[in-house]
Amino acid sequence: MGVVFFIGIVEEVNGEISKIKIYEEYKDGLEGIENYKKILILYWFHKRDDYRNRQTLKVHPKGDKTSPMRGVFATRSPSRPNPIGVTPVELVGIEGNILYVKGLDAYPGSPIVDIKPIKRKEKF
Amino acid sequence: MGVVFFIGIVEEVNGEISKIKIYEEYKDGLEGIENYKKILILYWFHKRDDYRNRQTLKVHPKGDKTSPMRGVFATRSPSRPNPIGVTPVELVGIEGNILYVKGLDAYPGSPIVDIKPIKRKEKF
Repeated sequence: MGVVFFIGIVEEVNGEISKIKIYEEYKDGLEGIENYKKILILYWFHKRDDYRNRQTLKVHPKGDKTSPMRGVFATRSPSRPNPIGVTPVELVGIEGNILYVKGLDAYPGSPIVDIKPIKRKEKF
Repeated sequence: MGVVFFIGIVEEVNGEISKIKIYEEYKDGLEGIENYKKILILYWFHKRDDYRNRQTLKVHPKGDKTSPMRGVFATRSPSRPNPIGVTPVELVGIEGNILYVKGLDAYPGSPIVDIKPIKRKEKF
């Protein structure tokens, strides 16, 4: 078993743009992130962090009950043993410890678990 | 804070090929994974799961002390608040609850946290 510390939170979602606050104590970890245009966000499906959802091993993909059940590791279902989402997003803005990203499918209130770089900005 | 359950373990690493055992109680979650040729492995950097490594917020990228320190969220350093690695791999073989994957940069003994599908096999 492992323990995950939440490093931030999705504060707002406006259409495709999400506002992420990285907590003050983790802010130094962001240094250099401004050089990236694409980053990976790991977040916690906090609404599925309960016994029933974490015991789920098979689901109807995309909730479509007419399609046969499939193992959760062959789906992106948020009901799974470890409620961690992984989404590549575009980094569209930074203000101190606030990141604005495009394309995150999380809810306001979702805890952030990690950020990893994907693709640097081009230099001109 | 969140709790992570380990769903399996890296049993062996032979060159580029890693043998992953998914624990019996999570085996049903694999159903349908055989349709994918590319999958995402989330694993635990178990050798860095200690206070010092998890307090690390800045590192010399790739351990190169001549290059300036950078925030861990702008690197793939295994020393970071949450020691989770995310690697896309090729699924090259399945035997029951054993997966053989190509391209995982984990050690033997690394706990597996999650598996997500990336790309289906082509149908002929």
